[in-house]
Amino acid sequence: MKKLINRPDDVVRDGLAGLAAAHAGMLRVHTDPDYVVRTDAPVLGKVAILSGGGSGHEPMHGGFVGRGMLDAACPGQVFTSPTPDQMLAAAQAVDGGAGLLLIVKNYTGDVMNFEMAAELAVDSGIAVESVVIDDDVAVQDSLHTAGRRGVGATVLAEKICGAAAEEGRPLAEVAELCRRVNAATRSMGVALTSCTVPLVGKPTFELGPDELEFGVGIHGEPGRERRPVATAAAVVEAMAGAILDDLPFVAGDRVLAFVDGLGATPLLELYIVYHELERLLAARGITIARHLIGPYMTALDMAGCSISLLRLDDELTALWDAPVVTPGLRWGA
Amino acid sequence: MKKLINRPDDVVRDGLAGLAAAHAGMLRVHTDPDYVVRTDAPVLGKVAILSGGGSGHEPMHGGFVGRGMLDAACPGQVFTSPTPDQMLAAAQAVDGGAGLLLIVKNYTGDVMNFEMAAELAVDSGIAVESVVIDDDVAVQDSLHTAGRRGVGATVLAEKICGAAAEEGRPLAEVAELCRRVNAATRSMGVALTSCTVPLVGKPTFELGPDELEFGVGIHGEPGRERRPVATAAAVVEAMAGAILDDLPFVAGDRVLAFVDGLGATPLLELYIVYHELERLLAARGITIARHLIGPYMTALDMAGCSISLLRLDDELTALWDAPVVTPGLRWGA
Repeated sequence: MKKLINRPDDVVRDGLAGLAAAHAGMLRVHTDPDYVVRTDAPVLGKVAILSGGGSGHEPMHGGFVGRGMLDAACPGQVFTSPTPDQMLAAAQAVDGGAGLLLIVKNYTGDVMNFEMAAELAVDSGIAVESVVIDDDVAVQDSLHTAGRRGVGATVLAEKICGAAAEEGRPLAEVAELCRRVNAATRSMGVALTSCTVPLVGKPTFELGPDELEFGVGIHGEPGRERRPVATAAAVVEAMAGAILDDLPFVAGDRVLAFVDGLGATPLLELYIVYHELERLLAARGITIARHLIGPYMTALDMAGCSISLLRLDDELTALWDAPVVTPGLRWGA
Repeated sequence: MKKLINRPDDVVRDGLAGLAAAHAGMLRVHTDPDYVVRTDAPVLGKVAILSGGGSGHEPMHGGFVGRGMLDAACPGQVFTSPTPDQMLAAAQAVDGGAGLLLIVKNYTGDVMNFEMAAELAVDSGIAVESVVIDDDVAVQDSLHTAGRRGVGATVLAEKICGAAAEEGRPLAEVAELCRRVNAATRSMGVALTSCTVPLVGKPTFELGPDELEFGVGIHGEPGRERRPVATAAAVVEAMAGAILDDLPFVAGDRVLAFVDGLGATPLLELYIVYHELERLLAARGITIARHLIGPYMTALDMAGCSISLLRLDDELTALWDAPVVTPGLRWGA
């Protein structure tokens, strides 16, 4: 295993220390328990948004803490859920009296721990709404999941709900928006290589030199099937086809297209994928009105990409365009 | 070779098509000859800045075209210099009557072709200044270079000179700034893996499972030496030591620290590297006043990173902070 790390045990802490050192103007990192909060937390009268999950998906979630996105993120160990006590401490650090939205990716450990954290937060006097994200069309159940996995829609929901909370909208409305984003998003990933978890030291799965894993999860969970290497056009057609048929998306739709790198994918390849996606959607009468291209929700050092499509309306578009100032996403300010 | 591409011959064109489709608000892509220009080019009365080089380093250079940075970028084939006719066509497309700055990375092919382009541009009535970037401390001469290679300082010079040109400064002053940035920057890279050029189809060099290439170039050129795998702390100490001793940087210096991913490096690892760098510099009395962390100057799918340090003064800092709106770098607007 070759990685730019120190001890495998220290990967999460060392990464958080780097995040804190680099972005002191946007966020603070608390240790024991570990969580990341925006520098001006708590913002009185604003709905607080908290997300989190296993580490190894950077910049998600810690890199999305800041004005216009998350108030707090709780990082677990690599590919391991954070704990309820972490979440409660983070919730109390960001509670501004207007309630708390928990954005939860649909993995069994995350769902269980966020449920416990929600109960603890309610007991401590905080109003809580939880939304579980489950946008991955690849498989119905998975290695770590009952029901569909939560993937790219998480990033989009964090941005859009962050903007709504920044506008001063009430908790019920921000939570409803989160459900709308999840319901209007479909995603699918493909792996060219496995990732390697630092504490394991060897690849999570084996892929032959001419194989792709279609529908892979962001922890290396198996997908729909293995297929031989194909052109970017063929790969995009298979992924986008599954996504489009599922909602379904139809001619006249305006979408946000998110082409995500899984950690070891050159930007050049992501632009080639985006080009194929744009052509395919145009042929179906679907317009890309907004896009996000880059490594935003990764799987350690996995090569590959995922595609997410969110069906936009004017409100979602305006909230997407609103200013955001985080290490991972930044515009308008 | 597994990559998200179509035909290896089409990699550059397909990538440019994706860039054009995604960022029509910032830039336009011209084909035959291939170049990228900002949408509002030519900007009358403003110094135009043109850079370019082989493709495979995305987002550099095409992703740095836009307000506050480059007016034009000329992409060659992968790891191959663009041609003088490309550069001349791009120069004429962005000439706003205030002259042209060519920012050239020090590789033999680039230097020769940019020199020819400069002569052609002068013949066509454009005032031209050229600055060759050579910030890599790893080796004195290299596979494709007489003298030091140009690496991370290129990104910093493009941003800083772009801001100065946007302010309306004259050509001689913008060129002088470019020379100052180059003179005040030192860089070094390390590879964990080779890259694979699409048209070649196999890795450019072989590295053992426990080896690192110290001082690697952004085309996979050999570095100073092979070393066994080491901790991030030890790797950073070796790289930063070579950088700091070379200028030399001294206690009291304020620097811009650029931790660059070479294409297949997870952001988590770059933050771990940044943390080690910040600690090492602090111990020497050197303050990181600005930073840039991410994949900005890549080498296709190479795993590894490079570190660049630029000694800042107030003027360089202010120009770094000025608004920039490009696909690759964006803030302040």
